[in-house]
Formats: sequence, structure tokens, C-alpha cells
Amino acid sequence: MAPKVTPLSGFPELLPAERLAELHLLDILRETFELHGFTSIETRAVEPVERLLGKGGDADKEVYGVARLAAGAEERRDAALGLHFDLTVPFARYVLENAGKLAFPFRRYQIQKSWRGERPQEGRFREFTQADIDVVDVGELSTHFEAEMPIVLAEIFEQLPVGDFAVRCNNRKIPQGFYLGIGLTDITATLRIVDKLDKVGPDAVTEMLLGTGATREQAGQCLALARISSPDASFVEQVGALGVSHPLLSEGLATLAEVIEAALAATRPGRVIADLSIARGLDYYTGTVYETQIVGFESWGSVAGGGRYDSLASDGRTSYPGVGISIGVTRLMQLLIARRGLTASRSTPAAVLVAVTDEESRGRSLAVASALRARRIPCEVAPRADRFGKQIRYADRRGIPFVWFPGAGADGGDQVKDLRSGAQTDADAATWLCPPSDLRPALLTS
Amino acid sequence: MAPKVTPLSGFPELLPAERLAELHLLDILRETFELHGFTSIETRAVEPVERLLGKGGDADKEVYGVARLAAGAEERRDAALGLHFDLTVPFARYVLENAGKLAFPFRRYQIQKSWRGERPQEGRFREFTQADIDVVDVGELSTHFEAEMPIVLAEIFEQLPVGDFAVRCNNRKIPQGFYLGIGLTDITATLRIVDKLDKVGPDAVTEMLLGTGATREQAGQCLALARISSPDASFVEQVGALGVSHPLLSEGLATLAEVIEAALAATRPGRVIADLSIARGLDYYTGTVYETQIVGFESWGSVAGGGRYDSLASDGRTSYPGVGISIGVTRLMQLLIARRGLTASRSTPAAVLVAVTDEESRGRSLAVASALRARRIPCEVAPRADRFGKQIRYADRRGIPFVWFPGAGADGGDQVKDLRSGAQTDADAATWLCPPSDLRPALLTS
Repeated sequence: MAPKVTPLSGFPELLPAERLAELHLLDILRETFELHGFTSIETRAVEPVERLLGKGGDADKEVYGVARLAAGAEERRDAALGLHFDLTVPFARYVLENAGKLAFPFRRYQIQKSWRGERPQEGRFREFTQADIDVVDVGELSTHFEAEMPIVLAEIFEQLPVGDFAVRCNNRKIPQGFYLGIGLTDITATLRIVDKLDKVGPDAVTEMLLGTGATREQAGQCLALARISSPDASFVEQVGALGVSHPLLSEGLATLAEVIEAALAATRPGRVIADLSIARGLDYYTGTVYETQIVGFESWGSVAGGGRYDSLASDGRTSYPGVGISIGVTRLMQLLIARRGLTASRSTPAAVLVAVTDEESRGRSLAVASALRARRIPCEVAPRADRFGKQIRYADRRGIPFVWFPGAGADGGDQVKDLRSGAQTDADAATWLCPPSDLRPALLTS
Repeated sequence: MAPKVTPLSGFPELLPAERLAELHLLDILRETFELHGFTSIETRAVEPVERLLGKGGDADKEVYGVARLAAGAEERRDAALGLHFDLTVPFARYVLENAGKLAFPFRRYQIQKSWRGERPQEGRFREFTQADIDVVDVGELSTHFEAEMPIVLAEIFEQLPVGDFAVRCNNRKIPQGFYLGIGLTDITATLRIVDKLDKVGPDAVTEMLLGTGATREQAGQCLALARISSPDASFVEQVGALGVSHPLLSEGLATLAEVIEAALAATRPGRVIADLSIARGLDYYTGTVYETQIVGFESWGSVAGGGRYDSLASDGRTSYPGVGISIGVTRLMQLLIARRGLTASRSTPAAVLVAVTDEESRGRSLAVASALRARRIPCEVAPRADRFGKQIRYADRRGIPFVWFPGAGADGGDQVKDLRSGAQTDADAATWLCPPSDLRPALLTS
């Protein structure tokens, strides 16, 4: 007997219309990445376990181990493999492995699945698709790449049915320089406490800061910095008004101002903003950091983020600084399906169903389909020569907008029916124009 | 210290230009599938091990088991998971799981990785991409779907730089009916022996058939049948001349004739042919079977094949007959890279490098890039305001055909240089036409 068919928790799968919506989204990602000159790579799904567990703290990434069922103990020990839990570890390995064959700065995008054995919960999955872009260079990386990332993010989210969103940016050097400037030296501890501001509120943060030895005045300054945000470069003045100075602070403010001003020149105001409360990831990133929130769905956290790092990878002699962002495609899709009713206007790519009058004339229907396909119009031939009412229902159930009737015209020519208007008109497969908006399934939200 | 960076045998990865060539190929697959109304699905990478090992003989599929490194013995036993080794097992499970939400006949395509822990060798990989299409119906499936599959295959291979190819078709019912008609009843054993014809030759096949109790005359008839092939329906007459009759034989001949004639109406002659020597997979398939050979690379075996089956899946009450083909994308890519030097004309999607005169004017270069992107022209802004010779070399090394020079014109307007001809002409980012053939990387073979 066949084993029971059951979904696996944390391994979401989409129905055809949902998948068509996801493909639409993936096409937007790919096109935007490619317009910006990012090139695609794909890495294998597995990496040596020791590489996956390499960095401190990665044990909580909940790695899935992979081994041939037939493998002996020796193979399991000597060639222990695991599924990658993000696209950064394999990308770093790919860069090191192929450094001699890549042209730097190397701009790559990568859209692939990753796996984490975490407990599944809303917004968290065991198998999920991520879309990453990174620019890595050898030795040095110019700051203008930091300005490019939020522009790419904004261009993408402008094309998605997400409504209002904001790409929020900070720069690690701003809090770091600011804390040093007011005499606080445990940067990491301070950042971790300030990161809790949203959850616990200013009073609790103040108490925790006092607990690390900060004075009430220093704690107040930290909170004042974290309250600053602006859709333009005016945050620089607001920070200036706090009267703190430090070379790192000035450097961070200048870079963040460059980022926000470049975004203002390229995107709608308010899409990319400076938000000095962002502290997430500042232990890993060394320059600009990014988060993306969809307005109304802040509880889902960031759906896209990243930052600048000084060393993606190092082979001992050379190090590879870079800047990158990662978009949580599965999280975004599940959010849009669950909360916005995202789907596609039909459950098939076919824009036209070519009806079949009787099985003897199927050849004529096939010829119509060939002619339409030669002109890049996706179509399907009716599976059975049922009465036309039934063939129309076949199209209707799938959301196919047009049904083609060979030989239905007065002169023996063909006709095509628009199922939405009901209008049926003479048509020739060699010349008929499918409305461009019907050529591919459209995105629908409820 | 970081673990050594080494490739894993059997897990091929592509360099950027090769990956661009693969994307080109995947785009052809997707577009052709969608023009035929196949809709995309993706299934999770893992299935319960008992499902993967379910069918007899699948043990040699060398399944990779998957388990959280942190999993205890209980989880490993009760929720044993493995990576799928093909796309058929997960598709069958998807159909059963979602049967109530799918519209039948269900036409799906699926382009995904699969994994097998086989010993890596030429043309065999441990991680590989397959592209599958299937049509499945409930209860009954019309034979005209069997005629559609080789047409889709031929359309795809016509668009690939593979040179001559042939989609070879047979029908299980032809040898089955024929063998029964001459009095041989062990169909499976006979098919397995005839399948060795290519490798061992007619004399050895005859000996083996005699060993199963066949007479010399019966063996001769089997060989005569296997020698028949034709690019049209003339094989029917050739079989008729052998003077054997059986209802199954007649049925098989009629269906195969329908398949070949439909292909002749839709593709170039000789692309889809009847070849009665094909015996591979006839133990699993129940109607038409397909194989695809690239001329000159027959030793690589079939790069795409499939067939008709009576039951993809069954939930006990309903069974789902179908017909499908599977294209070995990784095998095909590796073949084309190794033997035809397949690559792309550049290693980046960017068609234009926008030069930067000095860092102060980077904003102007960014504005040019925005204007080009708004018109769907992929471009990149030079990473550094080096002297122009160096910026041109940057483009040249990546195969980017055009370099844009803001403000280089006599009137302060822009100019664009075609690196191939060396011609530099006045241009406006709002109106410049990128030659369509340069918009995306082209396929190159050596």
C-alpha cells in the first residue's frame, strides 16, 4: 500500500494559480536584477557540514544533514554534507573556488531554495526561496555600491502588489561612533539593548543600559539617536543637534546621506529612508544596513534586508568585501497569499482554448494552435470534442479568457469569443491580436 | 581555519557565462511549455523515504536521506525524509494531495533539481536539473496527448544549438501484440533481450531468445520487427509485410501512426520518427514511448524521453493515467559545454557599461543608467572613474558590447561606442535603440 499523502509542515507548496503569481514575482526580481547588470549563478544544494557550521552561532541555523541511505559510517563521517541554510555561505565558497575566473567587482544574483530545520511558525519555513544580490570586490569596495542596493529593492517593491513599503537604512558606523563619542565602549551590548526598543519600550531600554554601567544621560542620548529618522538627509542635522562628535560617526553620516540622496534621485520620496533605530545585523555588517517593511505587516518583520560587510570570504591572502540584500520570496508570497489573497487571473498560461468541433477535425484545431504559438500566443487545444458549452466551461474553470472556434464564421472562417464580454468575432489565427494584458496571467489580490 | 574549498564530484556548478547559456536554454523550455498551455508547479525537495523507495527497483535510485543534525533517533525513524530522485514521484504525490483543487486533464511543467547518490561518471550527476511535462487525466486519457509530446520536444530541440536530432517513438503495444501474435508469451523477458540489440548485435540476441525457448523463426521475426523504422507512417506497411496479426498490435500501430502523422504536420520531416527497436522503459510505460538522440552524441544516450502510463498515481478509487516527457537539462548542458563549447556572448546581462567621467559626475552616469533601464536596456555603471581606456577594458573583459560616455558629444550630449566596430556616435539615453540581438547575451558554440 502506498504511504499516506500528507503535507509536510514547513514545506509549503503552491497551487497552480498561486505558482503563476509567484512566477510573476520571480520574473520581476530577475528582470530588475538583470537590468542592473547582476548575473545569475546557481550553487549546489549541499555544502560540507563543517563549512555550514563554520561561523559562530550558526548552530542555531538548524542544518539538515544529507547522506546516501546506503552510505557507511566512514562516508557519513568523512564526507558529511548538509543542505545550505542561506545563499551567502555557498556564494562565499563559490567566489573563493572560482576567484581566478570571475571578473571583479562581481555582481551576482541567486534565486534558490534554502533549508532550515527550525520549528515551523508563521513566516518561518523549513524550505524557502530566497533571492539575493551581492556586489563583491577584491580588497576594497566603493561606498556607491551601498547606495545602489536600496534603489534595487525599491524598484522591485514598486512593481509588487504590496501597497506601501519602506526600505529603512542605517549605518553601523553611526551608532558605533556615537556611542564611542559619548563614552560607551561596549558597542555590541549597547546595540543589542537598543535593538529591543520596539519590543520593550524606552523605559526598559534605559534600565538595561543603566545595567551595563551607562549613565542616565548616556542612555538618554542613545534613545535620542534611535528616535531619529528622515526620508532625506535631514537626519544629519538632527544627529548634529545632539552635540556628539567622533570620526566614525561623521563617516557613517556622510555615507548614509549619500545612500539616501542617491535613492531620492532615483525613487519616490519616502520609499528609502534613514532610520537610526535599526540595530539588527550590526554585529555582522560593517557599513550600511537595510530592512524592508510592508506597511500594515510590520509584525512579519523585514521581508528583504542586508548590508555591507568587509569580508564575505577570505583565502588567507585576499579578502572580499561586499554589499548585498536578500529577499525572502517564500515569506513574501505566503504573506501576500494569506493577507492579500494574492493569486493569478488564471490557473494556466494559456490565453486561448482552441475548441474542437469533432475528432475528425482536430487537425484543423491543432493548426490554429500552431499558428497562434508561432506568434507567441499561449494556447491549448480542447481535450475532447464535447459540445461547445462544455468546452467553454472548460476554459472558464481555468480562467482562460478566449475560446477559438475553427470554421464558426459565416464564410467558413474562424471566430474567437471573449468569455468576459461574451463577444464573438471573426478572427484569423495568422493575424489575430491577443490583447497584451491577456498574454500572460495577471496578478490578482482580493 | 576555514575548511578547504573543493568542488564536489557529481555536483556541477557553472561559471557566469555558462549559466547565462543555461538560462537561455531554460527560457526556451519554459516558453515552449507555456505556449502549449503547460502550467508550472514546484514541489518540495524532500519526500518521505518510504514513498521514495515505494516502487520495486527504486533502491538503485540511490536516495539521499535528509535529517536535522540535531534530530534524535525517534525523529530520524518516524519522519525519515529523502531528496527526490526524479520529478515523477513528487508530481504523483502532488496530484493525489491536491486532486480536489486541480482541473483535469492537468497539464503541468516542472523544472527542478533532483538528487541521486550514484557514482558520478560522464553524463551522470548527483545533483541535476530536469524539465518535465506531463498531462494527467482522471480515469481515461485520450491518445492525442501522446501525439503532442514529441512535437513539444522537436520544437524545443529546433531552438537549441544541438544540430541534428531525432525524437524516436515506439508503442509498447506493438512489440507486445507482435510477440503474442507469433506465440511468445514472456513479453518482459523478450523486450529486455531485444533492448540489448545495439550493444550485443543480432547473433547474440538470437542466442538469448533461443535460450528463453523461442524458435529460430520466432527470434528472426523479433529481429525483423526491431529493424523497422520510418520517418512517416510507412512502418505500418513494413510490419504488415511480416504477416503477424494481433488486436494489440493493430491498436499500437494505429496509435503510433497517429503520433507520427501529427508530428509530420507540425514539424520538419525526420525530427520525429517511428523506431520499433526502442524497448527501454516498456516495462513501465503502456503506450507510446519516446527517446531523443542528438546526432553524433548517441553514446550519451537519450537526452529527453518519456511515455504514456496508465496510472501515475492511485488513491485506491481513482487512477490517473498520463503521458509525459523529461528533459535532462544538466546532462544536455554539460554535453553542450564539453563537446560544443557552449557559452554565452558575455558574462553579464548588461548590454551597456555607462562610463563615469569623474566621481563628482557619477550622478549623471546613474541618471543615464536609469533612463536606459526604464526602456528595458540592461546596464551597469562603471565601478570607478578610471581613465576611459581602463573602463573600456572593464566592459571588454565581460563581453559588454556598448560603452556609454556621458557628455562626450561635441554639444555636451552623450556618445555611445560599439566595442566591436569601434564606432562612437552621438546618443540620447531616452531614445537610443539597443540592437535587439544585443539586448540579452547570445548563445555561442565553438
